[in-house]
Amino acid sequence: MTDALPAGGDLAALSLTEAAAAVAAGEATATDLVRACLARIDAHDGAVNALIRLDRDEALQAAAAADQARAAGAPLGPLHGVPLAQKDMYYRAGRVSSCGSAIRREFAPAVTATVIGRLDAAGSIDLGTLNMAEFAFNPTGHNHHRGDCHNPWDLARCTGGSSSGSGAGVAARFFYGALGSDTGGSIRLPATMCGVTGIKPTQTRVSRFGVMPLSFTCDNVGPLARTARDCARLLGVIAGHDPKDPTSAREPVPDYEAALDGDLRGQRVAVVDWFLEGAEPAILHVFERALQVLRDRGAEVHRLDAPVLDAVATYGGVISRVEAATIHAEWMRGRVAEYAPHFVGRLYPGYAIPAHAYVEALSRRGPVLREFVAQAMGHADLVAVPTLRAHVPTLAETDLETDFAAHWDRHMALTANTRPFNYLGLPAASIPIGFDDNGVPVGLTLAARPFAEARVLRAADAYQRDTDWHRRMPTAVA
Amino acid sequence: MTDALPAGGDLAALSLTEAAAAVAAGEATATDLVRACLARIDAHDGAVNALIRLDRDEALQAAAAADQARAAGAPLGPLHGVPLAQKDMYYRAGRVSSCGSAIRREFAPAVTATVIGRLDAAGSIDLGTLNMAEFAFNPTGHNHHRGDCHNPWDLARCTGGSSSGSGAGVAARFFYGALGSDTGGSIRLPATMCGVTGIKPTQTRVSRFGVMPLSFTCDNVGPLARTARDCARLLGVIAGHDPKDPTSAREPVPDYEAALDGDLRGQRVAVVDWFLEGAEPAILHVFERALQVLRDRGAEVHRLDAPVLDAVATYGGVISRVEAATIHAEWMRGRVAEYAPHFVGRLYPGYAIPAHAYVEALSRRGPVLREFVAQAMGHADLVAVPTLRAHVPTLAETDLETDFAAHWDRHMALTANTRPFNYLGLPAASIPIGFDDNGVPVGLTLAARPFAEARVLRAADAYQRDTDWHRRMPTAVA
Repeated sequence: MTDALPAGGDLAALSLTEAAAAVAAGEATATDLVRACLARIDAHDGAVNALIRLDRDEALQAAAAADQARAAGAPLGPLHGVPLAQKDMYYRAGRVSSCGSAIRREFAPAVTATVIGRLDAAGSIDLGTLNMAEFAFNPTGHNHHRGDCHNPWDLARCTGGSSSGSGAGVAARFFYGALGSDTGGSIRLPATMCGVTGIKPTQTRVSRFGVMPLSFTCDNVGPLARTARDCARLLGVIAGHDPKDPTSAREPVPDYEAALDGDLRGQRVAVVDWFLEGAEPAILHVFERALQVLRDRGAEVHRLDAPVLDAVATYGGVISRVEAATIHAEWMRGRVAEYAPHFVGRLYPGYAIPAHAYVEALSRRGPVLREFVAQAMGHADLVAVPTLRAHVPTLAETDLETDFAAHWDRHMALTANTRPFNYLGLPAASIPIGFDDNGVPVGLTLAARPFAEARVLRAADAYQRDTDWHRRMPTAVA
Repeated sequence: MTDALPAGGDLAALSLTEAAAAVAAGEATATDLVRACLARIDAHDGAVNALIRLDRDEALQAAAAADQARAAGAPLGPLHGVPLAQKDMYYRAGRVSSCGSAIRREFAPAVTATVIGRLDAAGSIDLGTLNMAEFAFNPTGHNHHRGDCHNPWDLARCTGGSSSGSGAGVAARFFYGALGSDTGGSIRLPATMCGVTGIKPTQTRVSRFGVMPLSFTCDNVGPLARTARDCARLLGVIAGHDPKDPTSAREPVPDYEAALDGDLRGQRVAVVDWFLEGAEPAILHVFERALQVLRDRGAEVHRLDAPVLDAVATYGGVISRVEAATIHAEWMRGRVAEYAPHFVGRLYPGYAIPAHAYVEALSRRGPVLREFVAQAMGHADLVAVPTLRAHVPTLAETDLETDFAAHWDRHMALTANTRPFNYLGLPAASIPIGFDDNGVPVGLTLAARPFAEARVLRAADAYQRDTDWHRRMPTAVA
């Protein structure tokens, strides 16, 4: 691993696990890593706008303490000395979490999110707070209050949302990893559009205590980082039951990194026609090429049909919309002018959904999951999906405030291949597999049965052993 | 106990626990009990219409087998040889459960309800199937398909619903106890109106496996019988976790009968003004007299205010209405003509409730319960409530099909004091405490904290030690 350390010393170019190994081996200090990240941020975040608060001095102090601890022979956590930064919706007691909003500009929670506590305990260093869609409620990365986040591959284009700063900042080498949250694609979309790796775990796999809610039953916490191995490291730290979140699963957490053996022999990968409908030729070309990489590693790829996905798409649009409308009902009555107009426009339809449609969507969730697993996974271990069916749009052509009607369909299309996995609750990772006609990344989603994160990560890692898309430096921040 | 056995041999006049004791002591056979019940049914069910199927021969055979078992020295269950009958929504594999409907007239489930299995295992004898509101969805006892059920105290008046046959049949001495179900008052209303004892346990206390659903989050299974002691016996048999119903609580089940010591010293009983608003003077008179009986047993009674009940009433009307609308959505689309018009008229408003109102009602349930317990039970062990605020109406003046608009308010008023305990999920029993101006029974509801069924039953039993309302024979079936 440590032979990957660049002779020239561009520490920011390391992956998260490489950076952790460099610190552990004494080849770099935590201070070196923080300085390398700060240099990247200083050079490029003016254009990208990934961070909404940079805790420069605190990070350097934490790095110095981490270096002292190592020098003193203290036991090192799996993220010792590694700089991360977190989406502005993970609470740290006493620190403002504005959730990308104006309404919560002063909100300083009294509790610390369980996942933040676990990342701290693993030795990571917190660089600051990341831009995000207002209250995690758009798939593009627009933010009316904090400024839009810009794609490091083409500053005019969307980063994807809602975890815009997480995707853009990891891609731009501002930090080694970040938490995102995913209610309809908010981890996988920025991972795809910015060309990094992100995983939405199984619903209930990771504690949501101390995390801003958008949808009780569809919200997920997960990591974005450069590689599948990085995500395995981060997921291993944050996953597992939390008494403070009674909805978190008691399922044991396997050693995700130990599963990364590069071997896909016997793994059956299903390509479901439904996810390819209307996909652009350039996307299909890159997607087919990625499947060949999986085949070369030993996977068997076959196509099949899963008609239940029509029901999944219908139901999947109901639940999170209703729950978001409920969570925001009080502010929508009294403080509607403090939201961005596009937020209000997207939330309003949630108030028009009748309750029986919501209850039906909830009560069909188990049967529909069983049906999907039977149809798509009866003869498959993994489902492979192009994360987006079209190229990454520009910020201008998805700006609802310039033309809500014209841009609404494009918004909805962005989540067509991500939202189903929220309704189904299945683990799904997105990895970079090439570029579209504009030279902007294309992503591959790999999904599996409930709690089969290790299988997803193993396939993603196997793919990354034979490709270098995840190592490419974004052209606009080179 | 057995000294209560009537010399003249009117076995049907015994309470359930007295009947069980008579069998255990050899003072009566199971066959005697079944014959006594059949005689009552033959004499009076033509007028009452409590049973929709009488399994005469099967019951006599089961009684003979029970008597043989006793003669052979077999161990006797707590209900050995005791005739019961069950509401037409408790499934027994292969037997029709029409749920009081036309749509399910042929429905023969493949499974047996857990509570039916437990009553069987305790040695009880199943006489047959009881009338009920169509799909358990009205508070009066009207049934368009099976004929209305008639109150044994005045055949022109409502029995209360939805467990109409359970309340009327126990009152008329057709059997010693019956299961009801309670989503908004369906155990407590027929108990009150027919002058028997019924308890709605804490939400999740009793398994609902194999029971027709009306509302996932508000349905409860519970017993109706003559006395609190009878209900304690039945609840002890049916309560407790069931692996087949993952929503059923793991809370241990205490010995309910052991708690019946007649001593109310130190018990603080709260009377909450909210439940008395607009109550008829005759009801208040009977209610005040009942409180004095509790005081005489040692209880301290005081009045207080619980303003959160306005929110309880609002939210409580939303949840079960939406869930019922969802459960019936498919039939309402394709088979609406097979429902009674009044069923359709009552269900329709459920389709107009927006989903965010439902989610708000659900998500406020925990906080509102804590608020109610703080306001009403901060200084009280029990809450005492008149189960109805008005006298028992006639079937004619609550017939929605003759004048929906005029009778709707009277329907809604019936559940004003019962429905809050479904939203709150608290255990609540109703016991007979006298008569209204028409000579029809009045009921007292006693409610307590979650899982405090023993406390409720102890107070109800203490009351019944000093009164004989529960022993009175209904005038129309004397």
